Amino acid sequence: MSEYTSRDASGASVGIVEKKYYSFARKPTEALVLESGTRLGPVTVAYETYGELSPNKDNAVLVLHALTGDCHAAGYYSKADAKPGWWENMVGPGKGIDTDRYFVICSSILGSCGGTTGPCSTNPATGKPYGLDFPVVTVGDMVEVQKKLMDHLGIERLLGVVGGSLGGMQALEWSLRYPDRVAGVIALATTLRHSALAIAFNEISRQAIMADPNWRDGHYYDGEKPNTGLAVARMIGHVTYLSDAAMRRKFGRRLQSKGDFSFQFDDIDFQVESYLLHQGTKFVERFDANSFLYVTKAADYFDLEQRGEANSAVKAFSRAKASFLVVSFTSDWLYPTYQSRELVRALKKNRLDVSFCEIKADSGHDAFLVPNKRLSRLIANFLEKVQSENDS
Amino acid sequence: MSEYTSRDASGASVGIVEKKYYSFARKPTEALVLESGTRLGPVTVAYETYGELSPNKDNAVLVLHALTGDCHAAGYYSKADAKPGWWENMVGPGKGIDTDRYFVICSSILGSCGGTTGPCSTNPATGKPYGLDFPVVTVGDMVEVQKKLMDHLGIERLLGVVGGSLGGMQALEWSLRYPDRVAGVIALATTLRHSALAIAFNEISRQAIMADPNWRDGHYYDGEKPNTGLAVARMIGHVTYLSDAAMRRKFGRRLQSKGDFSFQFDDIDFQVESYLLHQGTKFVERFDANSFLYVTKAADYFDLEQRGEANSAVKAFSRAKASFLVVSFTSDWLYPTYQSRELVRALKKNRLDVSFCEIKADSGHDAFLVPNKRLSRLIANFLEKVQSENDS
Repeated sequence: MSEYTSRDASGASVGIVEKKYYSFARKPTEALVLESGTRLGPVTVAYETYGELSPNKDNAVLVLHALTGDCHAAGYYSKADAKPGWWENMVGPGKGIDTDRYFVICSSILGSCGGTTGPCSTNPATGKPYGLDFPVVTVGDMVEVQKKLMDHLGIERLLGVVGGSLGGMQALEWSLRYPDRVAGVIALATTLRHSALAIAFNEISRQAIMADPNWRDGHYYDGEKPNTGLAVARMIGHVTYLSDAAMRRKFGRRLQSKGDFSFQFDDIDFQVESYLLHQGTKFVERFDANSFLYVTKAADYFDLEQRGEANSAVKAFSRAKASFLVVSFTSDWLYPTYQSRELVRALKKNRLDVSFCEIKADSGHDAFLVPNKRLSRLIANFLEKVQSENDS
Repeated sequence: MSEYTSRDASGASVGIVEKKYYSFARKPTEALVLESGTRLGPVTVAYETYGELSPNKDNAVLVLHALTGDCHAAGYYSKADAKPGWWENMVGPGKGIDTDRYFVICSSILGSCGGTTGPCSTNPATGKPYGLDFPVVTVGDMVEVQKKLMDHLGIERLLGVVGGSLGGMQALEWSLRYPDRVAGVIALATTLRHSALAIAFNEISRQAIMADPNWRDGHYYDGEKPNTGLAVARMIGHVTYLSDAAMRRKFGRRLQSKGDFSFQFDDIDFQVESYLLHQGTKFVERFDANSFLYVTKAADYFDLEQRGEANSAVKAFSRAKASFLVVSFTSDWLYPTYQSRELVRALKKNRLDVSFCEIKADSGHDAFLVPNKRLSRLIANFLEKVQSENDS
């Protein structure tokens, strides 16, 4: 138990954690060959671990983060650190992903800006940041980097891979690329193929970034950043992560000031406007605009159906061996329940072990990140089941 | 019957039409006093009429357009004109709003750019376009301008007011501001108060416009226009007007070129991206960025509940006298059916004559604009009923 316990109402914290790095593909001959055919190297992956790896290395759970997350899933970097990792409510002693039982790993995804190689990393060919010379990467490429990290950590078989949204896509990808190296797959608020609606919002966000004159074709690292474009992109994202019901509850039509409407455009009228502007401003401090282009593109390219013969998700999952837990949320309109049901059907047709649950929640797509006892219990029970099957 | 009949599969056209103008408030003493308290004048209103006004002027139907529409609801401006008015499928001889029976009027709303006074009109104080010196207007202000036009046309009592979305808000506003001057109100795909979700999308659109360096605080009329910002705003709008189902049907994950992914950011991968970019590019040719700010703000300010005592929609409608037809569409997530039901409840509690119908349609909010036999029939029957009650 750490002194941080009191900060998190849902239980104890893993306490002070440290960001670690692993680099590979240092020699051109060892370069990572991406799905696009491009060769990339060297590659550094930033990661954190919580809990202890068992002597026979069979208690490892890989947490996969979503679009703008990073490897800091739980704990604090220092005693003065005010904010814990992004999944503090789920990862920790006695929590849904129990660090007293499991060795939990989380790494920043390829192409993002959380310490793993991405467009803001130095391009060895020029000595300057890659910018748009960084190759377009896929969810599969992200998984390849994670697999290299597992090799490095000596983990032959993961007890579980777990993620929501883009993290869920990585979890599914793991089950197809490395069927022998993962026992349990937890896919939350996700899909087996990115929909036209989701692509549309991502494309508009990218257009907003690329319309910012400071973007300069992605080569902005030595000057002003395309912060206004990135803020608009984030605001779009935020609305798609919420729901009509959540927004009614959180904001309704409440005004920012107590008086009447401003009848102006440079004043804020509604609290929901103030919230969005704040989210946009906060986000540009921690996220790279080019990375936003890369991670959204990876999500848009995601399509497991296409992977099977004759465009069949059923065929695609014929090589999977893991047990699956699939969870959707009633008010998630970005990855609605029918998309999880399609996934479940494809898994069941392959006679795979699959549990499915649609959780009633009004917080939209964000629901998988929000403290939810039912979700924590589902994940805890599933991991326990997979572990006991593993042992037997 | 005109030669344009063949162009519109749903029936005959009103044929060649002409945009007309009416100006008022030419003297400072006659200025229009807006809801904000600001005085505005002179005001010009652009309008079109179809069909013939009956000798006792009791067959007039006022069509109210949505956010980016204008007074050109039906017909063509010339024989060479390739595109008819925006509601050609509904307004014409033998159609839902039958120009053989009714005298149909449609005017461009205040603050927009369809010929009625707005931010791109000349500010008499400076001799230059108003830009952001144009006062913020409300749905109520739009109705006041329409009422002036009705006075000018000598129409004491409208047989019907009909509109969808922002047009529906104007229709409801008519029933409260001028209960004795409207017999029937048709409110399609609308709401009695703009929701946090709808405000959020509007605010993001405005931010995208104001982030464009060409916007220059709204004073761009002598230079480059903020077209990239306006295009992003339009793309956001377009997605909110469609639905997940419509986008699956229209685009799915179909690629723009037959090959594989581009693995680039300057190429278009998906057809849905191409569609959105096309919509954005087309829109900036016909719409003014400042007007987009004004019309979205008017929608955001709309709240009939606030109008009643103790924030009650029921109280607000206590002064209404018209008959109502309220229509919602199953896949409209911008103004979902529950919002129409709230409206219907408030009307019924006032023992008003109200018909309500939720139409099954997968085309989202846009459904009210798409040819739909059931909608045409509902509107035709309602107008006929109101007319017969009027006569008796």
